[in-house]
Amino acid sequence: MSYPDDLRGLVDDALGRLRFSAAAPTAGLEGAMRYSLLAGGKRVRPVLALATARALGAETECFLPVACSIELIHTYSLIHDDLPAMDDDELRRGLPTSHVKFGEDVAILAGDGLFAEAVRLFCTQPGDPARVLAALGELAGATGVDGMVGGQYVDVIGEEEDAAGLRTLHALKTGRLIAASVAVVLILEGLEEPETIPYRRFADELGVLFQIVDDILDVTESDEQLGKPHGSDERHGKLTYVSLFGLDRARELAAESHAKATAALAEASGRTDDLRRVADYIFTRNE
Amino acid sequence: MSYPDDLRGLVDDALGRLRFSAAAPTAGLEGAMRYSLLAGGKRVRPVLALATARALGAETECFLPVACSIELIHTYSLIHDDLPAMDDDELRRGLPTSHVKFGEDVAILAGDGLFAEAVRLFCTQPGDPARVLAALGELAGATGVDGMVGGQYVDVIGEEEDAAGLRTLHALKTGRLIAASVAVVLILEGLEEPETIPYRRFADELGVLFQIVDDILDVTESDEQLGKPHGSDERHGKLTYVSLFGLDRARELAAESHAKATAALAEASGRTDDLRRVADYIFTRNE
Repeated sequence: MSYPDDLRGLVDDALGRLRFSAAAPTAGLEGAMRYSLLAGGKRVRPVLALATARALGAETECFLPVACSIELIHTYSLIHDDLPAMDDDELRRGLPTSHVKFGEDVAILAGDGLFAEAVRLFCTQPGDPARVLAALGELAGATGVDGMVGGQYVDVIGEEEDAAGLRTLHALKTGRLIAASVAVVLILEGLEEPETIPYRRFADELGVLFQIVDDILDVTESDEQLGKPHGSDERHGKLTYVSLFGLDRARELAAESHAKATAALAEASGRTDDLRRVADYIFTRNE
Repeated sequence: MSYPDDLRGLVDDALGRLRFSAAAPTAGLEGAMRYSLLAGGKRVRPVLALATARALGAETECFLPVACSIELIHTYSLIHDDLPAMDDDELRRGLPTSHVKFGEDVAILAGDGLFAEAVRLFCTQPGDPARVLAALGELAGATGVDGMVGGQYVDVIGEEEDAAGLRTLHALKTGRLIAASVAVVLILEGLEEPETIPYRRFADELGVLFQIVDDILDVTESDEQLGKPHGSDERHGKLTYVSLFGLDRARELAAESHAKATAALAEASGRTDDLRRVADYIFTRNE
């Protein structure tokens, strides 16, 4: 099965239409934000959101504001993670990172701006305002201290020493935003709690799968393929699934994680084909 | 008239009770966030929010979630503005800035974390969800490209050359968040558009006043009084109200701005005494 490129196309079109600057003096900031936002990628998180909408029988286009909002947050996190004070990476998706291209000050502000505009965009999501507010609260939690930012903190502090610590780190840093991409649509559609359980288990496992595969690709793929220097984790002395378990066992763990995700999805009601396709892509991707 | 210290006390107590970290590995991040958040200050923005609630005859305590949310955003912006790549300031409110105390990586994440937690907190605001969502959209706009972050961008790029450019810069960088502190409460209370006009004019002018006084204090006050090195703007070669107009004319401009703000407030319905007290404080402050 192939990646749901129709949903990705919807996301890319909607992202390309977004404008942030109302006046000339801030046009350069908007330019820096769009440089990173429109640098490509599979758009896994917003595609997950739209695929969840499709699984629930809803109109996918209606969920573009929240889907794009999540991609803005993901992009902001990449810009800040790449900064010299953080991972100090100079290439991302084959292009100079934001701070290399625009300077560190503008890169910090491009990230900050994307986060603010993500919230503003989310607030425009049509639907029951109580649900929109609950979904935004879920997303904000997934990006905060008990989520993405907290995970990045655990990563830079570098105190995690074992498999449990590694799993916690990635559950926060990567997992919660991926899970939220599914969860916000469940909330917006007002799904009853029992119905959400298989979707949430699927989404949680997808975050784990994503990270195991990321760690494998970091040591197996060429710079060109990745669009960034490979072996970056190793150079930074980071604990990864590969450094902890070795490459073979990491590949087994990825297969187990993929199996768990798809098993959870099999219990979900709805047309889950596209969600399955995203899981397959995450498992088999080479970039 | 004196500053509304009862409202400031409510804010300080509520901020002190906030916790962000759900687990041990992120406790250090929470510590860094609280270090900056609880470093004191007059809490002008949240006090403005509560004073607006009081002016409209509403229960002030009910607005603590949004009031604290705004202070979290203000604190995040200070942490990022102080970074070496930005203003490179080492002291803030008499204490080492976040990056001096915790390192640049943690400071960036403390700012990011405060922003996310601000959004999460705002989503818990009681009241009509449609109004909460509209108010959050207003706040997000005030912090984004056409607001605080955009203003900071214009500042670091440093291309503004005249009074109009300076006014634009500060309207974005400082003015919009101050204005939003009043506006979110007007929205939450569902005030009709005509009634909001004097409040909005007051709040807009307050942002201008705040910045003129800030520029004056930067050259007239001692380091100890300011809690940061004075003359910082001059060292950075920044255009300020003082560098552009001279100290005497800047003081006249501050007096004119204060008069405009209080004149606008005089047209507002409601018990506006505390809002007036905040305006007086901003005009006469020496720290």
